[in-house]
Amino acid sequence: MMNKIIVQKYGGSSVANIERIKRVAEKIIEKAKEGNKMVVVVSAMGKTTDELTKMAGQITSSPNERELDMLISTGEQVSIALLTMAIHSLGRDAISFTGMQAGIVTNTVHTKAKVSAVNHKKLKLALEKGKIVIVAGFQGIDVNGDITTLGRGGSDTTAIALAARLEANGCEIYTDVDGVYTADPRIVHTARRIPVISYDEMAEMASLGAKVIHYRAIDLARNYKVKILVKSSFIEGKGTLIKEAAPMLEKVIVRGVTQETNVGKIVIRGVPDVPGVAYKLFKAMAEKEIIVDMIIQSAHHNQVNDIAFTVALNDFDKSIRITKQIAKEIGAKEVISESEVAKVSIVGAGITSDPAIAARMFGALAKEGVNIDMISTSGIKISCLVSSPRIEDAVRTIHKEFNLNKVGEEK
Amino acid sequence: MMNKIIVQKYGGSSVANIERIKRVAEKIIEKAKEGNKMVVVVSAMGKTTDELTKMAGQITSSPNERELDMLISTGEQVSIALLTMAIHSLGRDAISFTGMQAGIVTNTVHTKAKVSAVNHKKLKLALEKGKIVIVAGFQGIDVNGDITTLGRGGSDTTAIALAARLEANGCEIYTDVDGVYTADPRIVHTARRIPVISYDEMAEMASLGAKVIHYRAIDLARNYKVKILVKSSFIEGKGTLIKEAAPMLEKVIVRGVTQETNVGKIVIRGVPDVPGVAYKLFKAMAEKEIIVDMIIQSAHHNQVNDIAFTVALNDFDKSIRITKQIAKEIGAKEVISESEVAKVSIVGAGITSDPAIAARMFGALAKEGVNIDMISTSGIKISCLVSSPRIEDAVRTIHKEFNLNKVGEEK
Repeated sequence: MMNKIIVQKYGGSSVANIERIKRVAEKIIEKAKEGNKMVVVVSAMGKTTDELTKMAGQITSSPNERELDMLISTGEQVSIALLTMAIHSLGRDAISFTGMQAGIVTNTVHTKAKVSAVNHKKLKLALEKGKIVIVAGFQGIDVNGDITTLGRGGSDTTAIALAARLEANGCEIYTDVDGVYTADPRIVHTARRIPVISYDEMAEMASLGAKVIHYRAIDLARNYKVKILVKSSFIEGKGTLIKEAAPMLEKVIVRGVTQETNVGKIVIRGVPDVPGVAYKLFKAMAEKEIIVDMIIQSAHHNQVNDIAFTVALNDFDKSIRITKQIAKEIGAKEVISESEVAKVSIVGAGITSDPAIAARMFGALAKEGVNIDMISTSGIKISCLVSSPRIEDAVRTIHKEFNLNKVGEEK
Repeated sequence: MMNKIIVQKYGGSSVANIERIKRVAEKIIEKAKEGNKMVVVVSAMGKTTDELTKMAGQITSSPNERELDMLISTGEQVSIALLTMAIHSLGRDAISFTGMQAGIVTNTVHTKAKVSAVNHKKLKLALEKGKIVIVAGFQGIDVNGDITTLGRGGSDTTAIALAARLEANGCEIYTDVDGVYTADPRIVHTARRIPVISYDEMAEMASLGAKVIHYRAIDLARNYKVKILVKSSFIEGKGTLIKEAAPMLEKVIVRGVTQETNVGKIVIRGVPDVPGVAYKLFKAMAEKEIIVDMIIQSAHHNQVNDIAFTVALNDFDKSIRITKQIAKEIGAKEVISESEVAKVSIVGAGITSDPAIAARMFGALAKEGVNIDMISTSGIKISCLVSSPRIEDAVRTIHKEFNLNKVGEEK
């Protein structure tokens, strides 16, 4: 019988120091001993990526992105070498691969590259030789032979891309919490672990601030039907299984509450009401790979509009520059921006089809005295932009409103 | 007219921190402004390589060498990215290449790889586009696509290999001293800079302990007739030019005194006097890429010999293990080792053809009360193994004996 292939991914906190690397090595070997072929994706140790980025910042405020990738990709390369040595020292054969060596081919968009292919020949060969394969997450190589990095959620994406390509029997994402919770347990002490969640719901929760796994990794997993088990690398637990939606009951369920503080709001005021203005703005953003999140266009009486939208805070300054440029071109009145905002969201399949749910959410916020600045909804989520100092209150009151401490499982 | 190509190499101390990296960027641009096409080889920042090696040591006492190369090669990758950003921030175009991207192909001997080819296509293309090219020293890639490192003197070797392949018009090695001195200025305060020295003399001085440039790099430079200018990256100075021997006067000159403390002595006692014993031992050493330096075989009356030799201290433990194994196989009496030894040498073309020179060296040591343990000579050097606590006295007394404070140029 063929051995099963298991892909595991360990995040930065799981390999933050030598002791933790040794513990991860033990966990990997345990799983290998069950007769599995192991492919392990690793992030950079602890805060390494931040430290490297800071060094670049000491040289220039706007480092060239190719060089930034050259720089920060060293973080994972250190991790894979050390983890491989740790496995060797426990008597098992293992080999490390950089993103390039593992055949992770990407497009040429530095610092935010997308995986375009996985040439897994080398990796397969190593597995066939019985080696445990350790792969640098977060990185790849483009057609020019330049090192790229995958941006946020990059290591999760590497793991799922490899699991898909290798048709792995399991994909386990190890992080610092034991799965996905109904809310951030640091904010809501009664938050409960969700045992099983659908790709759609998880993708929404992730894109709305749940830090456990990145939504782009979920999207990839859904496309290739890779089941993901999210577990803690520190404590034993059952984790959360992310897979296709289970047959749904009629009953609509709010699965969780998320918060996102890494968000800034930009408003262009006095936009002339001519076609193509919004297109022009968001095309310029897309060209810089900036993801625009909530968008509201409000019409005024005298043929001018306001356009408000949110972006991630790390794209904030760049977005303001672009917006001001476009505002000038289209003859808008002014651009204002606000960084003291945060987004609270509820997620659950079908929740927007039941108007009572939105009403309960807004009502809970009102009762708590939290003003709602912007609202956006999709089929399975409702998000409200609120003032960031009130975000924790907002999460708690909504979690309570939907009785989320009584669903899921005990921590 | 074609632009000149200049290859520069900056060692670890030259790029030890952000400030120094910025200063190096300025120096490079200065040279580029003179109309030169620049290729710059960089080492890892300061003590990075040591720190990475130490991390590996915290995991295992005998790290796998492929993984060690994977680990320590990140050091130069950080340097090239930061230096390239620093050049960008000063308004010049530049691009970084890892050893692999620069086409440095090596054999498969990890941690001590030898350069077998330079595929300089990418590099040429970047130069043609007017970019300053920054290359990670000390590293390459083997036929399996694995990252290799070149061992001691690796970055110098990278620089000279590139200078040879690109038929560069100059090769400048920047280090923390302004050239090559008649002795280590930290030990001998009256030491003088040597303005011009031949490849042969420099190779000897380097292999005998002068830290300025590694002898393997000199060997490569001699083979390809690459003239090397060794300069300080901190102070302005004329440096030392290393090139083919100038027409020699009849007069034999002692060029310099060197010391090497990174040395250990091993003695096999009671070796049966049968043919092939030394071959067996040194073949085993060569297979592990261990360089055996001084060798003395002394015959005894009863058909047994002693064989004494020295190796670099970092190969010491491994060498003792190998020697004990061989000693057992050939039925030798015992293996003894001594790490408290050091080597003092004088270098100068033709010095061994004048017996008076050796006599003066030994005499000076005797007068200073320094015992000579082993002696070895070649056409242009005489080396004595002495007790390591006496090494500085030995260097000073020999420097004085040959009036080296009166040759060369003022510091």
